[in-house]
Amino acid sequence: MDENGKQTKNNFTYNIVATDGKARAGEFITPHGVLQTPVFAPVGTQATVKSITPAQLEELKATLVLANTYHLFLRPGDELVARMGGLHEFMQWHKPMLTDSGGFQVFSLAKTRKVDENGVTFKSHIDGSMKRLTPESSIAIQENLGADIIMVFDECSEPTDRFYVEQAMERTHRWAQRCQDTKKRSDQALFGIVQGGIFDDLREQSARKISSMGFPGHAIGGLSVGETKAEMYRTIEVCNQVLPPEKPRYLMGVGTPEDLIEGVLRGIDIFDCVLPTRLARHNSAMTMSGRLNLMNAPFAEDPRPIDEHCSCYTCRCFSRAYLRHLIVAKEMLSATLLSIHNLHTLLQLARDLRQAIIEGRLQSFADQAMQNLNIPRTQETCK
Amino acid sequence: MDENGKQTKNNFTYNIVATDGKARAGEFITPHGVLQTPVFAPVGTQATVKSITPAQLEELKATLVLANTYHLFLRPGDELVARMGGLHEFMQWHKPMLTDSGGFQVFSLAKTRKVDENGVTFKSHIDGSMKRLTPESSIAIQENLGADIIMVFDECSEPTDRFYVEQAMERTHRWAQRCQDTKKRSDQALFGIVQGGIFDDLREQSARKISSMGFPGHAIGGLSVGETKAEMYRTIEVCNQVLPPEKPRYLMGVGTPEDLIEGVLRGIDIFDCVLPTRLARHNSAMTMSGRLNLMNAPFAEDPRPIDEHCSCYTCRCFSRAYLRHLIVAKEMLSATLLSIHNLHTLLQLARDLRQAIIEGRLQSFADQAMQNLNIPRTQETCK
Repeated sequence: MDENGKQTKNNFTYNIVATDGKARAGEFITPHGVLQTPVFAPVGTQATVKSITPAQLEELKATLVLANTYHLFLRPGDELVARMGGLHEFMQWHKPMLTDSGGFQVFSLAKTRKVDENGVTFKSHIDGSMKRLTPESSIAIQENLGADIIMVFDECSEPTDRFYVEQAMERTHRWAQRCQDTKKRSDQALFGIVQGGIFDDLREQSARKISSMGFPGHAIGGLSVGETKAEMYRTIEVCNQVLPPEKPRYLMGVGTPEDLIEGVLRGIDIFDCVLPTRLARHNSAMTMSGRLNLMNAPFAEDPRPIDEHCSCYTCRCFSRAYLRHLIVAKEMLSATLLSIHNLHTLLQLARDLRQAIIEGRLQSFADQAMQNLNIPRTQETCK
Repeated sequence: MDENGKQTKNNFTYNIVATDGKARAGEFITPHGVLQTPVFAPVGTQATVKSITPAQLEELKATLVLANTYHLFLRPGDELVARMGGLHEFMQWHKPMLTDSGGFQVFSLAKTRKVDENGVTFKSHIDGSMKRLTPESSIAIQENLGADIIMVFDECSEPTDRFYVEQAMERTHRWAQRCQDTKKRSDQALFGIVQGGIFDDLREQSARKISSMGFPGHAIGGLSVGETKAEMYRTIEVCNQVLPPEKPRYLMGVGTPEDLIEGVLRGIDIFDCVLPTRLARHNSAMTMSGRLNLMNAPFAEDPRPIDEHCSCYTCRCFSRAYLRHLIVAKEMLSATLLSIHNLHTLLQLARDLRQAIIEGRLQSFADQAMQNLNIPRTQETCK
């Protein structure tokens, strides 16, 4: 089934160019260019993808970069970024950008927090000062930052405490409405976020509620926070059975190769994760046949690249021996070269998944890739 | 006076293409390409110019990169580098390279050292183990590394203690002969090093001795170690009155804009220094009108580039406000972007000095540049 995207009330167009099972290859049109989905977004938490220049990101053919509202609100401040011409101009990324709402970071990073119906008061992880975010202020900050895709302010919760999860989910729905009501800029696509922890009925309820609100795209939040892989994949299926297929679906904060593959098979279009750059700073190389810790002694005299099949700058030029030397000698270049490689792995995987969808061979591509990764495929439970 | 370079017994050719006063524009032909002099060499101590990829160095149009024998001998070991195909291949710098001999680092970095006639025994600054370098082993290491220009193993000394300086100088002369005698590879130019502290008569004596030994190039060592600028410049003059004009002259470890200018005016062709990359890691930007500490609060909302006249990637793209944000947020990218800018400043200055020599306007160029730097010119004392 080919579905053609339709104009949303926010004037954002998503064209589905091919489907293969539940998976889709699409084009999401933003003010800063077209996103070819499935797409993986490198994370530039503090308005920089760590250890990488925007020129290097362009060379990697990245298209979507995520930045964090929580971090930029605290430092250097969204109003300063606005005065400097907005986030695209500030960090010199002229392609599509996405900002999250700060909801997740308030729960994962802030030292203490107090949630009330109106918003969250928390202690800054930088200087301990008291700060507050509300649905209205999160949108105002994101409008100052000026990303192409912005997110509703949601309440994240420990995913297995049903009482709390349900309360947080219902508040997230009320906050989503407030975000939509307060939004002023028409050049930003505001995505709703489905919550509900690992409870199928709550996820279904949340997906129905969020789907009914007319957002130009939808995200699945609150995953990859401790649940099992099987729980994560089943939750994706539950959400995507409800979320309208004609709008893009974004799985927040997820970014291992196997999760991209399993996510795309279940109808996810957009992913982001700090994993590739974080692993790079911890000496770990991601490949489509597993991870290598380049600190390990056997690499000391290994003249091969990280991955002989990889076409990234790092693999075209440098040996494992050299990368290990940089790590042992505590040279910053190791983080840069490993970040380039790890980002390439996920960006290329997303491109390969798209191509497989277009050519109608996603199942065999996925089976082969999971076999190379030496990870058993998790079969879909909702058919 | 135009002097044409001649073949040295090492088959290295230095062509002087123009002179202006004592300054020269030349071409030193190496197995990995032609060095257009005057030239500034970025320092890649541990086989990496810190925080910069070789691709970024190429974009900066760097031609000569220096690496440190002392560091690479200790880690990862010169024999490992040789097995990985040599330093050019290991670090993926395919243009000319220079290695120093380790002499300076043994004196500046090693925890303890004991000099005898045969060499130096010292404690590694990395793991405290006892190591030894001799003229013969320094050359063997540099032959394993495989740079285009290699240096004799010299004894550096506190430049003002005449008794010690004289002893160290005489030993340096004996060691220079031993380096020449032990050298095997014909594709590396071995440069002699003039020592003698701040004592004109010793410098003259050293320059005569080293000049008589038939090296294809000469270096002035032991400067920029605490002496005054006037002492440094006078010492350069004393040495260059003796060093043969038909061979390249390398002022070791010197790299402020004013020192490049004053050095070139006195007949220096090659410079190297860690300063641009080290200052970058300490938030300091080098410009031809002085230094900026980008951590300073007034830059927080400054939309201008570091230097409006600079054509480097950093200045073409990024504001002072963004660079300050990166510094405050402790993002590695600040070191990369400032290193690119600082290296560009010195590389471009060397190119500008060369062009001024070729066009016979070096004096006015130098006067204007020193005025912009707000540094009084130090007049030459030896006419």
